[in-house]
Amino acid sequence: MTRIPYIDEARLWKRHMAMAKIGALPGGGVNRPALSPGDAQSRSLLARWGDELGFSVATDPIGNLFLRRAGTDDSLPPVISGSHLDTQPTGGKFDGAFGVLAAFEALQAIHEAGVVTKRPIEVVSWTNEEGSRFQPGCSGSAAFTGAVPLDQILQAVDRDGISARDALAAVLASERGMPVRPLGFPVAAYLECHIEQGPRLEDAGVPVGIVTGMQGSRWFAVEILGDEAHAGTTPRRNRRDALTAAIAMVSALERLMFDEEDLVRFTVGRFEVQPGSPNTIPGRVFFTIDFRHPEASTLKRLGDQVDAVCRAHANPCTVTIIETFNSQPAEFDPAVIAAMRGAAERLAIPTMDLSSGALHDAKFLQDVCPSGMIFVPCERGISHNEAENAKPADLAAGARVLAEALVTLANA
Amino acid sequence: MTRIPYIDEARLWKRHMAMAKIGALPGGGVNRPALSPGDAQSRSLLARWGDELGFSVATDPIGNLFLRRAGTDDSLPPVISGSHLDTQPTGGKFDGAFGVLAAFEALQAIHEAGVVTKRPIEVVSWTNEEGSRFQPGCSGSAAFTGAVPLDQILQAVDRDGISARDALAAVLASERGMPVRPLGFPVAAYLECHIEQGPRLEDAGVPVGIVTGMQGSRWFAVEILGDEAHAGTTPRRNRRDALTAAIAMVSALERLMFDEEDLVRFTVGRFEVQPGSPNTIPGRVFFTIDFRHPEASTLKRLGDQVDAVCRAHANPCTVTIIETFNSQPAEFDPAVIAAMRGAAERLAIPTMDLSSGALHDAKFLQDVCPSGMIFVPCERGISHNEAENAKPADLAAGARVLAEALVTLANA
Repeated sequence: MTRIPYIDEARLWKRHMAMAKIGALPGGGVNRPALSPGDAQSRSLLARWGDELGFSVATDPIGNLFLRRAGTDDSLPPVISGSHLDTQPTGGKFDGAFGVLAAFEALQAIHEAGVVTKRPIEVVSWTNEEGSRFQPGCSGSAAFTGAVPLDQILQAVDRDGISARDALAAVLASERGMPVRPLGFPVAAYLECHIEQGPRLEDAGVPVGIVTGMQGSRWFAVEILGDEAHAGTTPRRNRRDALTAAIAMVSALERLMFDEEDLVRFTVGRFEVQPGSPNTIPGRVFFTIDFRHPEASTLKRLGDQVDAVCRAHANPCTVTIIETFNSQPAEFDPAVIAAMRGAAERLAIPTMDLSSGALHDAKFLQDVCPSGMIFVPCERGISHNEAENAKPADLAAGARVLAEALVTLANA
Repeated sequence: MTRIPYIDEARLWKRHMAMAKIGALPGGGVNRPALSPGDAQSRSLLARWGDELGFSVATDPIGNLFLRRAGTDDSLPPVISGSHLDTQPTGGKFDGAFGVLAAFEALQAIHEAGVVTKRPIEVVSWTNEEGSRFQPGCSGSAAFTGAVPLDQILQAVDRDGISARDALAAVLASERGMPVRPLGFPVAAYLECHIEQGPRLEDAGVPVGIVTGMQGSRWFAVEILGDEAHAGTTPRRNRRDALTAAIAMVSALERLMFDEEDLVRFTVGRFEVQPGSPNTIPGRVFFTIDFRHPEASTLKRLGDQVDAVCRAHANPCTVTIIETFNSQPAEFDPAVIAAMRGAAERLAIPTMDLSSGALHDAKFLQDVCPSGMIFVPCERGISHNEAENAKPADLAAGARVLAEALVTLANA
């Protein structure tokens, strides 16, 4: 009889702390931008752990990292599980890292328990999920699933003028000798663990959330051009102040997006003003819009008004609005949800059903293979913040459900 | 009989073009931040020109640069004239540079005409007038006149964390051997040439403006602190979005500052949002306010409301408001105005009276010695912009009036 994979809570926690040292911030958080030297360091740490267990390590043309344990029929499409190792500029220790390290812990537990699976199982770390250095995010899963052409993704440029293409080339050059697989091989199923990034599991006192679906997202980039002029000598009537126009736009967008039921998620997260001198009227403003809603109809109705609202407040400046990302609300696969639910029942781990407010790589995978997600609680729901925190026992509970579900799916 | 100083229009223009090569931008403008390597280069070019004519060169503890031509009684306080060589980040070729180069051309013309003056005449370049790298500006004239303690000025820190103290030390170290005079020696009179930075002279077709006074300025720095959080999962009611608060503040300030007669000058020029990631709610915003008005009563009435208006719109974030600069409206000295007017009449150069919308170093000098300013037209009034432009003939007309007035004042 097969042994039950043993998830080692202390080992899983220790790996989180080891990973969090790479790009550690004084406030306890992590800054590990996609395709930075820190990101490369976290990849090489994960690859080393994989080598130690005899998993085969590979990458692909967008830099996704795969660790593979063979199945009895190794020609079958694998079951894969993971998340991402890049972080927000002042991010936490768990967003992304938990999904990768839970998958690794599950695969190690399966391996050490001598569990044989028909299909291979792989751990994956997707490239640039956060989208804070190169926009938009989910570069690795979008390229892998063919949702966005690789060439388009590699054209993104960071704030210092470095392209994703050049940053990726530098990371891959540092990994010379690692096999490169093609993008988008067939996948039997995809499972992703993640901290909830909301308060519901913690409030309910439940360690594991079964994620049934995901709200939709639309991203926009807005550029306003005015005229730089002297702050002391230029009358209001002669000004083309790009900041004044931008402030009118964001105010109007906040009114547009206001909903009493508080389902709309509207955020202007990046907002840059040039030349940025106290006594020069700003000649250029660039800002981003991140708008999300669980219903496709509202996502369309409000999102389609962004362009007109910005234009209505541009005068006397000019404005360019580009929709950089559009992801419809999604539902996860019933068979994958059933596998997770069955696993939790066998392990007697309480669960609740949730939908995801955040976008994850699983959204892209669901378009090409049966996919699902497991959430665990995080402290006060705080995320994208150095104070992000989670309990070792909750992380382990998520990894236990994952390991069981992976075995089920790998034998299906 | 004394010869009339001969202002060489071509030489004056050539010096502007030579100076504009230091920190030249592709768009035709100049980026020469105060106390940067470019600023040091412009100082050393000016010092070299001074050496070539036998003027004595000196600096002082804030890095002001002086070129001196002796008087017959060299113990008398000098008449001095100049402006500044630092620029806005995307500034032009004439703002500041014209005042320094016109003074140099005038002194060279006086020297080459063999004109003997009772008092010495000095050309000055004041440190960090613009205030775009280290805030506030007019560091050199404020320190020289004792308006602001030197120690306080040197504590200012730029965006990269470099202090004015360290930046100045680097510039002075590169000028080893240059005599250092104490701050604030007695000055008989101060004259400053500058482009108008407004459209009135050009509209009237008059080459020289006699500046009768200057509007007042109040600067504020506003910092808003909220909480970084995930854009996709954090409900509006749970957010402490620093950008939303900042936008409400600036909108309310724009309403406060609106005046039908268009005399108020209200500008938010620097506006920084952190962490600046599209899918993270901003946790911090920093912005500056530059508010000016010709009447002391309005400057007080509106400026005194800035703090309360910002506080009223801070909730649920916290806000800190600091007034970083307060300069009352000023009138220039009647004797200096008379000297400029007399000079223009003798030279048959048309003039008109103007008041200055911009703050200049002359504002600080007027507090310690009789002072005045000469404006020349600039194209369409554009300034603090790479497109800033002026006509060689107008620059020369300003320098002619300056040279005559300097001789008058240096013999008074």
